[in-house]
Amino acid sequence: MSQAQAGDATIIDGKGFAADLRSGVAQQVQALKDQHGITPGLAVVLVGENPASQVYVRSKAKKTVEVGMESFHHHLDANTSEHELLDLVQQLNDDERVHGILVQLPLPDHIDEDKVIHTIDPQKDVDGFHLMNVGRLATGDLDNAMVPCTPLGCLMLLKDQLGDLSGKKAVVAGRSNIVGKPMAHLLLANNCTTEIVHSRTRDIAAECRDADILVVAVGKTRMVRGDWIKPGATVIDVGINRLDPEPGEEKGKLVGDVAFDEAKQVAGAITPVPGGVGPMTIAVLLANTVTATCRQHNVAEPARS
Amino acid sequence: MSQAQAGDATIIDGKGFAADLRSGVAQQVQALKDQHGITPGLAVVLVGENPASQVYVRSKAKKTVEVGMESFHHHLDANTSEHELLDLVQQLNDDERVHGILVQLPLPDHIDEDKVIHTIDPQKDVDGFHLMNVGRLATGDLDNAMVPCTPLGCLMLLKDQLGDLSGKKAVVAGRSNIVGKPMAHLLLANNCTTEIVHSRTRDIAAECRDADILVVAVGKTRMVRGDWIKPGATVIDVGINRLDPEPGEEKGKLVGDVAFDEAKQVAGAITPVPGGVGPMTIAVLLANTVTATCRQHNVAEPARS
Ligand SMILES: NC(=O)c1ccc[n+]([C@@H]2O[C@H](COP(=O)([O-])OP(=O)(O)OC[C@H]3O[C@@H](n4cnc5c(N)ncnc54)[C@H](OP(=O)(O)O)[C@@H]3O)[C@@H](O)[C@H]2O)c1
Ligand SMILES: NC(=O)c1ccc[n+]([C@@H]2O[C@H](COP(=O)([O-])OP(=O)(O)OC[C@H]3O[C@@H](n4cnc5c(N)ncnc54)[C@H](OP(=O)(O)O)[C@@H]3O)[C@@H](O)[C@H]2O)c1
Repeated sequence: MSQAQAGDATIIDGKGFAADLRSGVAQQVQALKDQHGITPGLAVVLVGENPASQVYVRSKAKKTVEVGMESFHHHLDANTSEHELLDLVQQLNDDERVHGILVQLPLPDHIDEDKVIHTIDPQKDVDGFHLMNVGRLATGDLDNAMVPCTPLGCLMLLKDQLGDLSGKKAVVAGRSNIVGKPMAHLLLANNCTTEIVHSRTRDIAAECRDADILVVAVGKTRMVRGDWIKPGATVIDVGINRLDPEPGEEKGKLVGDVAFDEAKQVAGAITPVPGGVGPMTIAVLLANTVTATCRQHNVAEPARS
Repeated sequence: MSQAQAGDATIIDGKGFAADLRSGVAQQVQALKDQHGITPGLAVVLVGENPASQVYVRSKAKKTVEVGMESFHHHLDANTSEHELLDLVQQLNDDERVHGILVQLPLPDHIDEDKVIHTIDPQKDVDGFHLMNVGRLATGDLDNAMVPCTPLGCLMLLKDQLGDLSGKKAVVAGRSNIVGKPMAHLLLANNCTTEIVHSRTRDIAAECRDADILVVAVGKTRMVRGDWIKPGATVIDVGINRLDPEPGEEKGKLVGDVAFDEAKQVAGAITPVPGGVGPMTIAVLLANTVTATCRQHNVAEPARS
């Protein structure tokens, strides 16, 4: 799953890993159909016309179908009332063909996101945002938690790279509820000595330099420099930042939260941007949908975390 | 709240702090009665004849009454069925006089503790064990979380000692769901750089030595030695361990997880055992009951975390 490069870090091939994960999911879907007569179904709900959200939702639906699952798409008007949206979520909770429900965020301002998320049946909450799932992850109950896709994807890359993570010192930069904190919970559940650093941290470079595993999710272009990294460390760069376009470019380049060219001289292994963590998110969403399906039907589930 | 001693650390007077906290709670209870006609009520449910549990429950009931709250005591037979217990919890959820519900653990083996805890209305869950409350704490939603009593008590002692905790490096030794993890969440929410160490941590002494704030909850007699502590650090010892009795003693002495005599030569401030964290737990339980009462009646609540 990784290719060494002369004189410096292994570049972790997230794109390739994600493709393999999707193939594995496709096999699991086929087995669920063949052995149990079950077709996993993922419902995606979009409200309004946010162009970025439309791109994501289309891409999710396409990949859902590619792995052999059923894709249910609900596109509601920007003026949809909260009540109507909650009704739809309730219908999807009750629909046996639907095993995973994803409501694309952000929602229009007149709708309470928290209320919508907490109306989703926690067993169908494939994004892992429901507080019951947050609580399960925080208490280490990974057999029952649905885990947020991006950090679970990072964990998969780390385990593929390093094997058992026990006893390693992990530092997570960033403490958002969708990346940093669930990442820290996963690393702790995998027996890492686990630290979170953030904007109030005093000497963040020194803290990072102590990490065997460094996961960076701060949303700041190339913040983590080469000399923040312990030689040989494994670095996972979650950041997606777009640079200003160079002359002649239409769109600026995508770069991470880590100064890649410096970091790869020091790290043992590192994810690139693009092609590292980015492609994992949708692949894990599909994997989570299989996990949810197995739990809802009491079928043994594939190991993931 | 603390008394300096010649040549070494400030000894943090948890017993005194807890007494002051209870006086504050008594005033808040009086104000709720006078200004709103509300009497906070705490229901404690005990199943079976565990002698330690009986002592705790009696002590809680006594202090509940002392601060002017209503105490509801339910002592059920060891043979009570799970169904009967769940029914009682449901009744207490529906009872407007009851603002806090505490089911004393452990429960007899034939009863599913998780099921009982998750039947408690999260708003009345003054122990903070319901996964909805774990999730709220983990996501930093302290305005709505009910927070476990022991770690919240530790936080109060730390803030009393240090004021604003922002940017301090905090290390929590131990990752149980009732002490270590919620402690880490509280420290992170208070802007500490936050690390958890545990039995798989490689060089635990070195990790601890980096801490401005060191909270120890491992349940190992005097595990943390003087040279594990950064000079001037604030040390909170949650451990309660009973030594074997000395000749002539009836019961052995209580000691903490920190080698107190060594640690107090190095630390800036430290909690003793007994008389440190121990007395805080019940005081915070009463404070949580006032918080729960205020939230249930939409009355402004006292600041706690
Ligand atoms: N599929 C994917 O690959 C994927 C998925 C999600 C996110 N992302 C990317 O990951 C990045 C992070 O996303 P997010 O949603 O977690 O971001 P977020 O909600 O904005 O959180 C950023 C975190 O970084 C911390 N931070 C900000 N500036 C910092 C600084 N100068 N030093 C130290 N810490 C700093 C913040 O600390 P405070 O809490 O102290 O403010 C905060 O905890 C973004 O680039 C996003 O686009 C990628
Ligand atoms: N009111 C109070 O004052 C109060 C309340 C609650 C608890 N306590 C006391 O606090 C202590 C901890 O209670 P708890 O319920 O959190 O205990 P627990 O559930 O037994 O958890 C102990 C934690 O310590 C870690 N640990 C054990 N041995 C270790 C070692 N040699 N090195 C590093 N870490 C080690 C364990 O790590 P692993 O996870 O890797 O096994 C575990 O995470 C006990 O003494 C208890 O009596 C006091």
